[in-house]
Amino acid sequence: MKTIKAALLGAGTVGTGVIRVFAENGAIISARAHAAVAIKTVLVRDMSKPRPELNGFSVTDSIEDILHDEEISIIIELMGGITPAYDYMRQALAAKKHVVTANKDVVAEYGRELAALAEENGVRFMFEASVGGGIPIILPLKVSLSANRITEIIGIVNGTTNYMLTKMHETRADFASVLKEAQELGYAEADPTADVDGLDAARKAAILSSLAFNTHIPLKAVDVTGIRGIKPLDIEYAKELGYVIKLLAIGRDTEEKGVEVSVHPTFLPQTHPLAAVNGVFNAIFIRGNAIGEAMFYGQGAGALPTASAVTADIIEAAKGIADGFAAPTGNIYVDKKKICPVDDTVSGYYVRLLVDDKPGVLGAIATAFGTSQVSLKSVMQTKREVPGKAEIVAVTHTVPHKSISAALDKLKTLSVVDEIKNVIRVEEC
Amino acid sequence: MKTIKAALLGAGTVGTGVIRVFAENGAIISARAHAAVAIKTVLVRDMSKPRPELNGFSVTDSIEDILHDEEISIIIELMGGITPAYDYMRQALAAKKHVVTANKDVVAEYGRELAALAEENGVRFMFEASVGGGIPIILPLKVSLSANRITEIIGIVNGTTNYMLTKMHETRADFASVLKEAQELGYAEADPTADVDGLDAARKAAILSSLAFNTHIPLKAVDVTGIRGIKPLDIEYAKELGYVIKLLAIGRDTEEKGVEVSVHPTFLPQTHPLAAVNGVFNAIFIRGNAIGEAMFYGQGAGALPTASAVTADIIEAAKGIADGFAAPTGNIYVDKKKICPVDDTVSGYYVRLLVDDKPGVLGAIATAFGTSQVSLKSVMQTKREVPGKAEIVAVTHTVPHKSISAALDKLKTLSVVDEIKNVIRVEEC
Repeated sequence: MKTIKAALLGAGTVGTGVIRVFAENGAIISARAHAAVAIKTVLVRDMSKPRPELNGFSVTDSIEDILHDEEISIIIELMGGITPAYDYMRQALAAKKHVVTANKDVVAEYGRELAALAEENGVRFMFEASVGGGIPIILPLKVSLSANRITEIIGIVNGTTNYMLTKMHETRADFASVLKEAQELGYAEADPTADVDGLDAARKAAILSSLAFNTHIPLKAVDVTGIRGIKPLDIEYAKELGYVIKLLAIGRDTEEKGVEVSVHPTFLPQTHPLAAVNGVFNAIFIRGNAIGEAMFYGQGAGALPTASAVTADIIEAAKGIADGFAAPTGNIYVDKKKICPVDDTVSGYYVRLLVDDKPGVLGAIATAFGTSQVSLKSVMQTKREVPGKAEIVAVTHTVPHKSISAALDKLKTLSVVDEIKNVIRVEEC
Repeated sequence: MKTIKAALLGAGTVGTGVIRVFAENGAIISARAHAAVAIKTVLVRDMSKPRPELNGFSVTDSIEDILHDEEISIIIELMGGITPAYDYMRQALAAKKHVVTANKDVVAEYGRELAALAEENGVRFMFEASVGGGIPIILPLKVSLSANRITEIIGIVNGTTNYMLTKMHETRADFASVLKEAQELGYAEADPTADVDGLDAARKAAILSSLAFNTHIPLKAVDVTGIRGIKPLDIEYAKELGYVIKLLAIGRDTEEKGVEVSVHPTFLPQTHPLAAVNGVFNAIFIRGNAIGEAMFYGQGAGALPTASAVTADIIEAAKGIADGFAAPTGNIYVDKKKICPVDDTVSGYYVRLLVDDKPGVLGAIATAFGTSQVSLKSVMQTKREVPGKAEIVAVTHTVPHKSISAALDKLKTLSVVDEIKNVIRVEEC
């Protein structure tokens, strides 16, 4: 049996997870790869740090050692971040080495370019672990759903925010305290920006939508809102109205208006399959014109689940080498679908207002919505928090973004409206 | 662009679904197959039946026309049943044609043999649609989870019984009336045996477990119980105790005792991801030593979802032909794991008894369990239905099947026990 050698760039959480999966499941991996697969070299940043877990591997801090090692045919990039990971992957592909990565930053930004470079060089560029951790989603999207025109892909793709929102639903705690708790448990970083402001989810939304719609979706085309603005009161209203609030990455192919991709906290009906996805779990829900609805659920992060996805890619690459298959060709971003401007996207909206508690207010507000062509599904008025004031919670039918913007502008001019407390999207499907 | 030609055996619900998917998504299919793919010939049983939906295809009632047509390289078997589908697929593989099938009967019974025959002839044998309708599960099991030792696979794989059990939970209707309703809605056949007695689920359990554990699991190794015995009262108790009753196909690799595969109505905690899978939806839950938990959810039947899975296989086969890839090799049933005898399998159990309503009964019953080494998790006594009688509902901890059998034998000998009303497995994970 041939031995296929790989190099690991980065020996952090996922890297050591991959080493552990190879140690535990080596026989399974070799059987399925049709070849013995061995990690030969590990690239680390700091050679002086003692790393007993890397005993038995060749350890280096020079990418050149790996790029020029002709024995190494697969490079596993697990460093994260754009620099130097992106450069290393480009060099690896140019050196005709297969590349497997879990790096959502690079895949979202340079995935199209790296896929083309891989094709030029007759090698593979694989990134199953870049979205959804262990959840198989990239391969099912590319292969299992290949007979479908996919119209919608909705994901809970960030475990940190899903954990936090789940806690907020369970305990009525506020954003700051659940963030603190998530940080203590290691579910949120010391700097939580990328998670709570939605950037991590936006990168995954760009990757998923690019694949689902066969069109390169640049990160800047993703309309992003994070979860900092979600108050315990919003969660209370959501529950009362039959919803849960989830941070959703949504991609839609509307055909006539183009593709829209966004990340927003969203009111989701409690009966939706994604509504039951709690804690650090992730799930991706897909609608296609043949399959109807499908959902993929699992652990979106963690050393071993992510290593499971990384190692599956390594096995595929190794099997290709062992069986003498050429790397697959064909640009996956072949369509040039236009991006739908945010103003033209449609959604339902939840609008929470602080208003004067006096007769006629509800009428004035309903009129402001109506003259902006925003039709209301429900509206309720409650007294809370501030004496002399009332809260009005309106849920709209599906309306264009520009109409809700116009309505909000109108509401701001009304003297009875103290403050627009929150505006959150509502998914009805 | 090369044109790859296929023949359809059977023009029933799924067959016409495939024709419709080709008509609607032809451009997508060709782009992803790297070749134009066309259905050339359709095999039907009765040539005299008018079939306007087959206009434009060559229609025949002779398999020989297809087997000897050198233009046809892919055969899509959608006839169902063992005879003549099994023979036709053997002949097709021997004629070096790729075979795509949705036939769970043949795959469960002869999958191993047909896979070997395909390998001998350098062609593919593909059966994604044989389990879970449109849900991608065969490919994810074989490829995406390939780095895992899979320890457990639990599926809701029969839409008819899941629809019926969902209705029974919602309405407290009994088995006979929900069956009648399911038949009227077309969710159940006139002869519902294969569904309600668990045989359909057992075939899918055999296929899934064979793939998950890399070991051929013959249908006769699957321990099967259907849902005929489930009473509205059992569902009421299940709800009270925090469970739902689902017909589950369960495969487990216990290592020391071997592989166990069964289909049973099961008490499942309401918090389990599978518990929310309702109506005609299917889902497959997998536990692996790297990925942890994962679940795949979608429509388990229906013309278009099933056609989605069939067409994905056709695209893969066509791409292989277009790109000149050899068919994949390597026996997927390479391990020879032993099958765990039913007596050695372990489970929790729900036991419902009709007993005399007098002091000391609960003690006598608890003693009967205890002396059989069955430890009880909970026991409750209620007066229902029959005057002078009480019902006792016991839920056991996880115990070997032989211990519960011994306990039940002992209970039958007690004069205070009128009748063992029901015994249903309980999953705690």
